[in-house]
Amino acid sequence: MVHKEEVEAFFRQLQNEICSGLEKLDGKSIFKEDVWNRPEGGGGITRVIENGNVIEKGGVNFSAVFGKCPDFLKKELEIPASDELSFFATGVSIVIHPLNPFVPIIHMNVRYFEAGNLSWFGGGIDLTPHYVNNDEARFFHTHLKKVCDTHNPSFYHEFKTWADTYFYIKHRNETRGIGGIFFDKLSATKDITVEQRYDFVKDVGKSFLTIYLPLAEKNRNKNYTEENHRWQLLRRGRYAEFNLVYDRGTKFGLFTNGRTESILMSLPPLARWEYAVSPLPESPEGQTIASLKKGINWAV
Amino acid sequence: MVHKEEVEAFFRQLQNEICSGLEKLDGKSIFKEDVWNRPEGGGGITRVIENGNVIEKGGVNFSAVFGKCPDFLKKELEIPASDELSFFATGVSIVIHPLNPFVPIIHMNVRYFEAGNLSWFGGGIDLTPHYVNNDEARFFHTHLKKVCDTHNPSFYHEFKTWADTYFYIKHRNETRGIGGIFFDKLSATKDITVEQRYDFVKDVGKSFLTIYLPLAEKNRNKNYTEENHRWQLLRRGRYAEFNLVYDRGTKFGLFTNGRTESILMSLPPLARWEYAVSPLPESPEGQTIASLKKGINWAV
Repeated sequence: MVHKEEVEAFFRQLQNEICSGLEKLDGKSIFKEDVWNRPEGGGGITRVIENGNVIEKGGVNFSAVFGKCPDFLKKELEIPASDELSFFATGVSIVIHPLNPFVPIIHMNVRYFEAGNLSWFGGGIDLTPHYVNNDEARFFHTHLKKVCDTHNPSFYHEFKTWADTYFYIKHRNETRGIGGIFFDKLSATKDITVEQRYDFVKDVGKSFLTIYLPLAEKNRNKNYTEENHRWQLLRRGRYAEFNLVYDRGTKFGLFTNGRTESILMSLPPLARWEYAVSPLPESPEGQTIASLKKGINWAV
Repeated sequence: MVHKEEVEAFFRQLQNEICSGLEKLDGKSIFKEDVWNRPEGGGGITRVIENGNVIEKGGVNFSAVFGKCPDFLKKELEIPASDELSFFATGVSIVIHPLNPFVPIIHMNVRYFEAGNLSWFGGGIDLTPHYVNNDEARFFHTHLKKVCDTHNPSFYHEFKTWADTYFYIKHRNETRGIGGIFFDKLSATKDITVEQRYDFVKDVGKSFLTIYLPLAEKNRNKNYTEENHRWQLLRRGRYAEFNLVYDRGTKFGLFTNGRTESILMSLPPLARWEYAVSPLPESPEGQTIASLKKGINWAV
């Protein structure tokens, strides 16, 4: 049995630890905090950091909301609209847009949901390098595989494939980045208890700093050109396209009167769109594009 | 009776005239042209101008496509999926993102559609000033009202209200700009023939340069500060949000395998997102926000 109070407390603590780790990394800017309440029940703590040494813009959001199950949710859960049902949802969401084009964008989400006698976990971590570096892509996926393997030998393959499918910009025929892991609606099964699901999600959450700090430290002071910066802004444009056109969390939030500023903290500080950019295949930009495909086996 | 060949020819000519007028305005950059074919029938001419003296990025697109009516279209037209039906669609679409923050963003679209014995016109013009200038807003709406009034006394009110409703960013509780006119599926009625619809749409198309050239000429050399530029980029962020989250043409195009680069020419060259920007109500930025509301009566 997993108690929602315990999950909520863990997520609150996770937000604190990650913010403190990111502030230490940045060394200049600190998070600005907004505490908000949801009229129908619950609320959240939005934390945004801007104009740092390492982080140009980033958000680490916590929320825990509850109340009467809204109709769209009943529909998704295939529960009759006439059923009276209360729900509870808590989670942590992170998007970091770094200043240096050689530091990757990272996104993490962990969430827990309850309605009636249903309960499940969801979440994932994925990486969007402006320039794909093969060693770093291998480090990232290998670390995620290790986290997954500790819990279940089938997790990594399943959740890596899910990320490839989910983080896909169809109209560009590109994945958003090099993927990672993604999972949703993980309830108890006959093989896996809900406590085991929770243990896994805790480890995913705790792996954020272990993964991101070395990637950021390694690249934060790399020299870059105006051309590298332009390419970074173009890749951020794609990131904005994914989040505004496809991302379920974003659309769900915007269409259900969520807190817009908390939802759209994921958008880049600055983004660029040019007509029909087409880098040479052998250029670093072209090689990056070639790596934005589903089904690449990065983990060692 | 309106002949589709004639409408198509008019739209081609309109694209040429507008491109030539905008190149003359800009005085530095010229349009780059891509001619594309649609495998299922028809094609288009995409023209994009970038890094000009006046226009930072702009697109003037023509297309004329035809073929078997796709299923989603039958659904929208409430035609049984089993019916064999061919369709024809032609139009011109324009979005101009100017360099100077005091020159407004403008959008225009005119389109004609035929399927079976159905045919109609759609389109509109709307203005998105980064800074709302009341005199210019009045000039813009008064000119549109004049164009509408020549054709029918009810058009301006009807199509202005339609634009207010359509160009609305719900999650921001803001209109995209100061609106303009918007109309769709204008078929013949007992009072208005399809030829009269066509005459109206022709006049809307021809009013583009008459409206935009003076607005651009008046403001193209205005001095602006870094703060004005930052605000321009933030407003462009909102423009991107509208186009990617709400705009029917964009979504329709992206979800039906349209030509992505032609559809997304509407996105700004550079856009900015900061967390929870909130200008003072008495500042020019705050006054602009106060003007981004439905139902303001600008026309004189």
